[in-house]
Amino acid sequence: MSVTTKATIASFGGKLLKLSHAAKTTNCEMNFNLYLPPQALKSSQKVPVLIYLSGLTCTADNCSEKGFFQHGASKKGIAVLYPDTSPRGLNIPGENDAYDFGSGAGFYVDATKAPYNNGYNMYSYVTEELPKTVFEAFPQLDSNRVSITGHSMGGHGALTLMRWVGANWRFKYLRNPGKYKSVSAFAPISNPINCQWGQKAFGGYFGEDQTAKWKEHDATELVKNWKGPLDVLIDVGTGDNFYKQGQLLPENFEKAAKEAGIQGVNVRYQPDYDHSYYTMASFADDHVEHAAKYLLA
Amino acid sequence: MSVTTKATIASFGGKLLKLSHAAKTTNCEMNFNLYLPPQALKSSQKVPVLIYLSGLTCTADNCSEKGFFQHGASKKGIAVLYPDTSPRGLNIPGENDAYDFGSGAGFYVDATKAPYNNGYNMYSYVTEELPKTVFEAFPQLDSNRVSITGHSMGGHGALTLMRWVGANWRFKYLRNPGKYKSVSAFAPISNPINCQWGQKAFGGYFGEDQTAKWKEHDATELVKNWKGPLDVLIDVGTGDNFYKQGQLLPENFEKAAKEAGIQGVNVRYQPDYDHSYYTMASFADDHVEHAAKYLLA
Repeated sequence: MSVTTKATIASFGGKLLKLSHAAKTTNCEMNFNLYLPPQALKSSQKVPVLIYLSGLTCTADNCSEKGFFQHGASKKGIAVLYPDTSPRGLNIPGENDAYDFGSGAGFYVDATKAPYNNGYNMYSYVTEELPKTVFEAFPQLDSNRVSITGHSMGGHGALTLMRWVGANWRFKYLRNPGKYKSVSAFAPISNPINCQWGQKAFGGYFGEDQTAKWKEHDATELVKNWKGPLDVLIDVGTGDNFYKQGQLLPENFEKAAKEAGIQGVNVRYQPDYDHSYYTMASFADDHVEHAAKYLLA
Repeated sequence: MSVTTKATIASFGGKLLKLSHAAKTTNCEMNFNLYLPPQALKSSQKVPVLIYLSGLTCTADNCSEKGFFQHGASKKGIAVLYPDTSPRGLNIPGENDAYDFGSGAGFYVDATKAPYNNGYNMYSYVTEELPKTVFEAFPQLDSNRVSITGHSMGGHGALTLMRWVGANWRFKYLRNPGKYKSVSAFAPISNPINCQWGQKAFGGYFGEDQTAKWKEHDATELVKNWKGPLDVLIDVGTGDNFYKQGQLLPENFEKAAKEAGIQGVNVRYQPDYDHSYYTMASFADDHVEHAAKYLLA
């Protein structure tokens, strides 16, 4: 469980650490970044953590450089954990051939279909192994106060990894009822079973015959069975080409929540904003604020 | 003087425009970025402009994506103009061979030595042709309220392009006594005639025999002859490897100012910060604030 520090970079009064560790769930060395706000460097009090899940093609670095989360996190005293988006270097034939499947495109699921079931376990990695590693290595982080957010494929991750207690799809959620204090997303793939990106990924990681499994990882399906309060902040740009192409389908998520009588799904359609980090940077403070409401309550 | 719009990107309530134009001073098509804050889109009042000059190897895009000037500029109602760092594609033999000379390394001077005197005129480009082009194309920008800042080579640019009225090195400064309302810099090459980067660039652009010319573009030499008030904000990270290697020499600039009895040179040595955009992002708001004091006075 040891963590290697590859770089320490001053950022907004805190430190951005570039780290790596030998991960068992993914069978490879995994890079990740961790932003420690100034409060985590100076005080003996533990700070909460916001996990940011990246989108297709990204590593931990993109949002660390361009997402502007450190700005708000520094002010609020929240650490930000940036995982990578897939295993790396497993040498599975074809894993580097497409931008939307295989490396850089783990989709935050545990693959059941060969050959990807040998290492493409980003669900277990992000929900279990990485947090366990990080909380052991950094005792100044509070494992009881964790929120989650993400972009595009990472928005899908954030919306499906959250505590879907009411959903009963997977009993394991019940084992960690307080896993995430809050959830938000930028341009999330909100209904993957009904878009090309999701169908390709779920077909490749689960197989075509596992539609029940597909639904376990589809936010729109999960929200239909939600019981209890919900407070989800979602930003989608109206100038986002992937939104226009029907890859994101936030309206399906909204509709399903409404039909299930669920309040608290706040989708903001931001005029002209695109799918890029310019959008994340513009609204990162709002998402840190959203998490802070719960993490600092 | 026509300007081509290559992209329009929503950012912090305003628009980042990716633009290009056929520049006469540099004999090529030049890319540049312009951030229009929300105030420039909605109001009939003109907004002031902050010019940001980039460092070695950069284009207009790096700081637009990673510098976070848009955050503060959006709040203050200031446009940000991001020029490129050299001519591109002139096909001068060797111009692409080094990261610190030729393309990406124009040093904000007008070259006098062949073959670079044919197009490497970034001084004239940044002080004359680009602003003229921009103010014609965007009447919502106020040509009477312009400030300048920059990073590394661009910090050198900012400190040497400013209105050195007292210096009398070049009469042309006197023709535009109000060219820049304020100046600031990140990790500037402050004494190029005494560092490797500067000596290589000035030797290549001016020749070894033109030491008087070299001094005209050296901030430390210029400040010695300054008469009048000065208010320069400079941030340098103590973890900056180029600072440690003696490429920046801000202490020489400070010392020269002090010996000339000049107040108002505020060099902040930021503990552990490095030479990267993480540093710029962390203090961009302060530099926008510094410019706003004068631009919005």
